[in-house]
Amino acid sequence: METKILTLEEITRVVEGELEGDPGIKIKGVSGIKEAKEGDITFLANPKYEFLIDASKASAVIASRELRGHVPKPIVRVENPSLAFSKVVALLFPDVKRYFKGVHPTAVIGNDVKLGKDVSLGACSVIEDCVQIGDNTIICPGVFLGYGTSIGADVLIYPNVTIREKSIIGARVIVHSGTVIGSDGFGFEEVNGMHHKIPQVGVVVIEDDVEIGACVTIDRARFGQTLIGRGTKIDNLVQIAHNVSIGENSIIVAQAGISGSSVLGKNVILAGQSGLVGHIELGDNVIVGAQAGVTKSIPKNIFVVGSPARPHNEAKKIFVGWAKLPELMKEVSELKEKVDKLIQRKAKSGKTKNHKK
Amino acid sequence: METKILTLEEITRVVEGELEGDPGIKIKGVSGIKEAKEGDITFLANPKYEFLIDASKASAVIASRELRGHVPKPIVRVENPSLAFSKVVALLFPDVKRYFKGVHPTAVIGNDVKLGKDVSLGACSVIEDCVQIGDNTIICPGVFLGYGTSIGADVLIYPNVTIREKSIIGARVIVHSGTVIGSDGFGFEEVNGMHHKIPQVGVVVIEDDVEIGACVTIDRARFGQTLIGRGTKIDNLVQIAHNVSIGENSIIVAQAGISGSSVLGKNVILAGQSGLVGHIELGDNVIVGAQAGVTKSIPKNIFVVGSPARPHNEAKKIFVGWAKLPELMKEVSELKEKVDKLIQRKAKSGKTKNHKK
Amino acid sequence: METKILTLEEITRVVEGELEGDPGIKIKGVSGIKEAKEGDITFLANPKYEFLIDASKASAVIASRELRGHVPKPIVRVENPSLAFSKVVALLFPDVKRYFKGVHPTAVIGNDVKLGKDVSLGACSVIEDCVQIGDNTIICPGVFLGYGTSIGADVLIYPNVTIREKSIIGARVIVHSGTVIGSDGFGFEEVNGMHHKIPQVGVVVIEDDVEIGACVTIDRARFGQTLIGRGTKIDNLVQIAHNVSIGENSIIVAQAGISGSSVLGKNVILAGQSGLVGHIELGDNVIVGAQAGVTKSIPKNIFVVGSPARPHNEAKKIFVGWAKLPELMKEVSELKEKVDKLIQRKAKSGKTKNHKK
Repeated sequence: METKILTLEEITRVVEGELEGDPGIKIKGVSGIKEAKEGDITFLANPKYEFLIDASKASAVIASRELRGHVPKPIVRVENPSLAFSKVVALLFPDVKRYFKGVHPTAVIGNDVKLGKDVSLGACSVIEDCVQIGDNTIICPGVFLGYGTSIGADVLIYPNVTIREKSIIGARVIVHSGTVIGSDGFGFEEVNGMHHKIPQVGVVVIEDDVEIGACVTIDRARFGQTLIGRGTKIDNLVQIAHNVSIGENSIIVAQAGISGSSVLGKNVILAGQSGLVGHIELGDNVIVGAQAGVTKSIPKNIFVVGSPARPHNEAKKIFVGWAKLPELMKEVSELKEKVDKLIQRKAKSGKTKNHKK
Repeated sequence: METKILTLEEITRVVEGELEGDPGIKIKGVSGIKEAKEGDITFLANPKYEFLIDASKASAVIASRELRGHVPKPIVRVENPSLAFSKVVALLFPDVKRYFKGVHPTAVIGNDVKLGKDVSLGACSVIEDCVQIGDNTIICPGVFLGYGTSIGADVLIYPNVTIREKSIIGARVIVHSGTVIGSDGFGFEEVNGMHHKIPQVGVVVIEDDVEIGACVTIDRARFGQTLIGRGTKIDNLVQIAHNVSIGENSIIVAQAGISGSSVLGKNVILAGQSGLVGHIELGDNVIVGAQAGVTKSIPKNIFVVGSPARPHNEAKKIFVGWAKLPELMKEVSELKEKVDKLIQRKAKSGKTKNHKK
Repeated sequence: METKILTLEEITRVVEGELEGDPGIKIKGVSGIKEAKEGDITFLANPKYEFLIDASKASAVIASRELRGHVPKPIVRVENPSLAFSKVVALLFPDVKRYFKGVHPTAVIGNDVKLGKDVSLGACSVIEDCVQIGDNTIICPGVFLGYGTSIGADVLIYPNVTIREKSIIGARVIVHSGTVIGSDGFGFEEVNGMHHKIPQVGVVVIEDDVEIGACVTIDRARFGQTLIGRGTKIDNLVQIAHNVSIGENSIIVAQAGISGSSVLGKNVILAGQSGLVGHIELGDNVIVGAQAGVTKSIPKNIFVVGSPARPHNEAKKIFVGWAKLPELMKEVSELKEKVDKLIQRKAKSGKTKNHKK
């Protein structure tokens, strides 16, 4: 991987750190602490793994200011090593994505399309009528933008994404390949066993700074809007049904699914493969565990797990109960025997007494 | 959203309803009963929410004939309010999808392709040799139709769909973006720890009036066919393996998965994230709950939930049992103590007696 | 389906079998044993279903050498009937996929692209700068290959696949439609409730003979590589997160998900809809049941099921326990009553005794 070369001094300045070691050392690459080789810089997020530094072949380490012991390597001390490291990565790999700049001759552009400054439209991208695209936005090859869709500035839409008509996408949004935004909500009216389509004439609104993974599906609202709040990050293969609303800075992990009209607060976390029924509300800071199945609304700050989902404390006890269930059955069966014996003796001794009478 | 304007009289005629109120009132939009503003028409599906009408800002309401009380707003009474409302939506938004009409110059069309009347082929769509497409069908941009595929009339294939060779798609079918029809079934033969591909030379058959969501995968049969029955509706991110057969008018909700060769009857419902093993049969009207894991065949009219899936009544009792399991363990442990004490006393009293002897 | 015609003699030679019957019989098609019609050849994988041969309309049967009884049909005896049958299918349907040969005029090819011999590039495929493609590889329409990607020989990439920059794909790999390889890993650093993107500058490496289903997502590594080992087969809609490593000849069934940095050994099987947390290890030959949720590392040769996942034997007992839980609660409640009665009597008899004193 071709990269730029930076000195430790330059790196220290960028991450606003404190350097111990030779400022002239040259850094050519980045790597994890175990895989690093000479010329790489690495980082240590957790001070308790300090012992890994000794064995690492890295030429320098970014670490927490808390790490105060002697380190046998050049070290850059910062507040948040992981974040600082990301800045270095961005600096060393300035051109990881070398997409075509400008409007490719094979891009298909409709009428009344408004392009901002320095917009890139990739090969075979299809921009329908009345689309608006903000400054510096990159639309990669094979992307479809439907009629009247509006895309903000500094957006990056990866190849083969489909964004249907009238979608509204904010600034600095990233959408990964294969994702579909604005497909029809799943709404049918049953009449005599046949399912009649309910028109889905609402839209999808994606606010600023949202990132959406690959092969995600976000359905348009029946009417009104399906809303993804500012700063929310969505992983791959997630399903978001019509009229769902997700608050700011939430995290939706891969293969999670949210049914229609459910409303999530801010800073909500849905772990992988979790699912929500429709028409419920999750308060701010709710955490839903992996594979959990949420069947009713959850007040804020609660952590639920399991299917059906329960508060973490309760569920933990139930999981312990499952593990002990075979033993419990044995115990109950032994108890039954003992109790029956006690009752029999009692009866006998009663009878004996009766006899005696 | 630009719409046409309709009078209440026109609306009443279209939905074959009964109007109470000024027939000249002008309707410009549609909305849910809570979000409606002046100029909107809304609807009330369930008479028990009648109290919402008072607070709604809608200019008119579509409601059930059963709703017989006085309503402080113009009202259109019909048999099925939701369905009637859908008709109004379709009327007010006649041109929601403004796709390119006709054959786009960038569409790539193979040999021996037969196009019906008024077929639209979008930009950068690729139609391989020997494909047939029925009248009025719309193929959106970026769609791939493989060799020898046949598509019925009045079909709508959204952007970036892939339909592989020899698939057979009926009339009035809708396929949403990102979906793949006719990919190879997942079939391998293990020989000495290596997996050898088993050719998948069957096809996929989609009958009339089926709707398929976004990023759905429907594999072609090993031989024979994978079949989706007439009128069945499939939500986003659903997996349908090779040789599966789904009966008419079934509903498959998002992220459900059906393993190879399983056969579903008519009017089956698979809720979200449910899964079926292969080679089983589900009778007509079977309902599978969300996240359920079906491991064996289910006779008709049964509702199953849980993983492994069980009839709803049984599973409900088990779920109650889970919740009480921590308490149950405590009870059993207390019982053990009590019984042990009883036995000890007994033993003592026996001993005492023995002593006395 | 148009096919070639073969004689039984030719078929016997190809599968290295032993023929009993007329070598001149003409075979025109293939089918399952129940669906076969005259002119078809079928196969019997399991000798215990021998009774199906009588009723089959097939003109010949491929069966195991173990099947030693008299069969009322021409029979080709082989070591592995299923594998032999696959060879016959490949022979009878030599041109199932009639993709465009050569470089389509609408393919968009960047600078410094190196194409091997007889490479096919489909319509509207987009090959970015510095891509390398090996001999005989077929890139179907609508495929995107990012900057610097390397594809081996004899590879088949189906329509509308996205392979991002710098991915490394081995020989004889098959990738089905809608799949995304090399999307960014899901990595964010939280600072004051906001999620900052961690650059994902690693790559994806797919070794030889891997097959990847439709709408699969395989994220690139943060740094280093996400690795799919030689001969591994991945079904549809599977999620593979950044820095995951999968050993050789593993099987990942549809809708399974593997979280970041987890490491799988050789010959691992993940059944449908199963999920793994991040940073764990699964030893060689581990099997994970359908819908299982694996929360910690598993040593080799273990079969786990359930969520949270447990060794199969333990889990089986728990599942039995669930089924008996309602009964168990009843038993415990009855026991409580009985024991309380015993205690009461005891107390009474004690009191009585006391009285007597």
